[in-house]
Amino acid sequence: MAYQATATAPVNIAVIKYWGKRDTALILPTNSSLSVTLDQDHLRSTTTSRADAAFQGPDRLWLNGKEEEIKDGGRLWVCIKELRAWRREMEESDSALPKLSEWPLRIASYNNFPTAAGLASSASGLAALVSSLSTLYALPQSASELSRIARQGSGSACRSLFGGFVAWREGTSPDGSDSLAEQVEPASHWPEMQALICVVSDAKKGTSSTSGMQRTVATSPLLSARLAGVPARMKAMESAITSRDFPAFAELTMADSNQFHAVCLDTSPPIFYLNDVSRAIIALVEEINRANTTPIAAYTFDAGPNAVIYAQAKDMPVIITAVKKFFPTEQEFTDPLKVGEAPLPQGFNDTVVRHGGWEKGAVKALIHTRVGDGPRVLGESDSLLGENGLPKVLA
Amino acid sequence: MAYQATATAPVNIAVIKYWGKRDTALILPTNSSLSVTLDQDHLRSTTTSRADAAFQGPDRLWLNGKEEEIKDGGRLWVCIKELRAWRREMEESDSALPKLSEWPLRIASYNNFPTAAGLASSASGLAALVSSLSTLYALPQSASELSRIARQGSGSACRSLFGGFVAWREGTSPDGSDSLAEQVEPASHWPEMQALICVVSDAKKGTSSTSGMQRTVATSPLLSARLAGVPARMKAMESAITSRDFPAFAELTMADSNQFHAVCLDTSPPIFYLNDVSRAIIALVEEINRANTTPIAAYTFDAGPNAVIYAQAKDMPVIITAVKKFFPTEQEFTDPLKVGEAPLPQGFNDTVVRHGGWEKGAVKALIHTRVGDGPRVLGESDSLLGENGLPKVLA
Repeated sequence: MAYQATATAPVNIAVIKYWGKRDTALILPTNSSLSVTLDQDHLRSTTTSRADAAFQGPDRLWLNGKEEEIKDGGRLWVCIKELRAWRREMEESDSALPKLSEWPLRIASYNNFPTAAGLASSASGLAALVSSLSTLYALPQSASELSRIARQGSGSACRSLFGGFVAWREGTSPDGSDSLAEQVEPASHWPEMQALICVVSDAKKGTSSTSGMQRTVATSPLLSARLAGVPARMKAMESAITSRDFPAFAELTMADSNQFHAVCLDTSPPIFYLNDVSRAIIALVEEINRANTTPIAAYTFDAGPNAVIYAQAKDMPVIITAVKKFFPTEQEFTDPLKVGEAPLPQGFNDTVVRHGGWEKGAVKALIHTRVGDGPRVLGESDSLLGENGLPKVLA
Repeated sequence: MAYQATATAPVNIAVIKYWGKRDTALILPTNSSLSVTLDQDHLRSTTTSRADAAFQGPDRLWLNGKEEEIKDGGRLWVCIKELRAWRREMEESDSALPKLSEWPLRIASYNNFPTAAGLASSASGLAALVSSLSTLYALPQSASELSRIARQGSGSACRSLFGGFVAWREGTSPDGSDSLAEQVEPASHWPEMQALICVVSDAKKGTSSTSGMQRTVATSPLLSARLAGVPARMKAMESAITSRDFPAFAELTMADSNQFHAVCLDTSPPIFYLNDVSRAIIALVEEINRANTTPIAAYTFDAGPNAVIYAQAKDMPVIITAVKKFFPTEQEFTDPLKVGEAPLPQGFNDTVVRHGGWEKGAVKALIHTRVGDGPRVLGESDSLLGENGLPKVLA
């Protein structure tokens, strides 16, 4: 007898950044953070989990068709262990339930965006794992309760368990029980919010965020000042979102991205994620906002050179026009949201970006998407596992 | 009757950076700073000041042969006015003195380094002006007292009135009377201290330091944390210099440079001075230090992409070898200090810098110099003014 469940989970891009752990084992952050969940129609991780009494040996997991080791005590292992423990509790209190918690698992996960896109896949991947397993086990826990588990797999994964605008509350408890995600507003509250991801080439592999953030915690004299300011910034951001105040959202988003990269630079040895192309995208967005008088776009950068530019649907044509003009991509851009293009604002000073724009491919690709909902449960036909319990070969 | 004096003054490069004014008119800084004075044999500003009763009209000044307006209330005007006032006091108390304070001035100044080198010439230039005028006027004031005047011409100029290792004390008085420079140690205390200036190309003109620093003061949430930490850093730096502790000097220098650029990035809109080549030089120096176990080199960057790498004479051959290997210059480098080259440390990982190094000219030129002394008074034969009171044409 076999049971299985398939779920998808979205990518989220923080506008108040998570950078630093106060507990590295439990993944408890040094500050609360806030993100926008992106539409799974465009970017998603899909995971199928199957429990079968006939499976032999330990649990097994494949990521994009390649088997990954589930290391004892590792992050994947912890997530599976905790969800299985909840299932066991259910089985113990209701003997009619099949003993899924005793059966080995086969898990296959797949990201629909290329690794080369430089988008962190750990958040959506872990969220899809937790969603599929909690569905398989028919767990009654809420998304916030599940987010505590996802957090231990990959900190920011907890935010991918919700759609819309999502806060990860740092919490105060040493056991991490109150360090979890919750929805600030659903996607339907502000559906005009869109994102343009500019995939930027980088010659050099940067510092991993896991090691980088702890180096910042250990060495940056400025980090404590950042942490002291985050609660007020979180409050202001939530208020900007609730009131759909885009200029306030933009100012806070850009300031927080810049401050995150500032504490990276204040780290010893310093950590750099922004390169000359990233800087040029910042200059472009700042100039569009200046020429427009009020901000219509907000850049933010995670632990890499890629820009994510948030803008409302009505303003996205201007942003796309500007980015295409100064950063011609190698891959032609076809816009799934078909917003079109529009002229740059009057008084826009094009000398802020390198004369004539950048060489083709400085920005490799553009991905246009929008705010979206949380994890989705799919049907049997979407299973990533074949009858034999091994991953299907995807075209 | 004419009197004249010619003086040269050195460039200084801060290791604890000045960034932010608490009083923009008096040029009172938000924090103390500390610099190394560089040898005038290599980099200097020269200024001749002449007072002549026969001169007609207002004071006039030429910089590199081009006349500059001495604007009423401007920075040059303030320096001249204050020095003239001290001369007047002397004349009033000793009627035997010629009334130089009543005679118009002609001032010619010349920098021996090209503007294209991207080195701030305002510090050495203002210091040379103050030195030549104070010599012309035979002022009894000490270099520290003169530094208060130079400070009002260009903040960091006050540090160019001393050789060796120089502190600019921020002071507490609202009138700026205690905001002045003093020598921490003379050049002879640590003559092994050398500097390699890497002149880095930049496509884009950066934000001026005058406007940039006040934008940081107005908008950076992290600046106050930086300011709170400077007194301890000053103390540690002075102690490192006094005890000739290069590793401590290097750690403090690099951390302060990075922190200065961090608060620039935390500014709204953000200020960037480091570009991809600057970042690569940082990565190179960090890797040399890592491979060597203890730091033998310290990078620092002012308000531009140029790197200044401090190292002791014995270690400079390694640094020069590494920089030449990864950043071949367009202009061939001839070393006035003839230290030679030396192999990179065992275990040096050359993948930290772009594979095979950067394209020729990413670093335009190298300037190798060392710690040096303070302003020098030259003889009549070095005058920059012709008999007619106009600047001589220099070859």
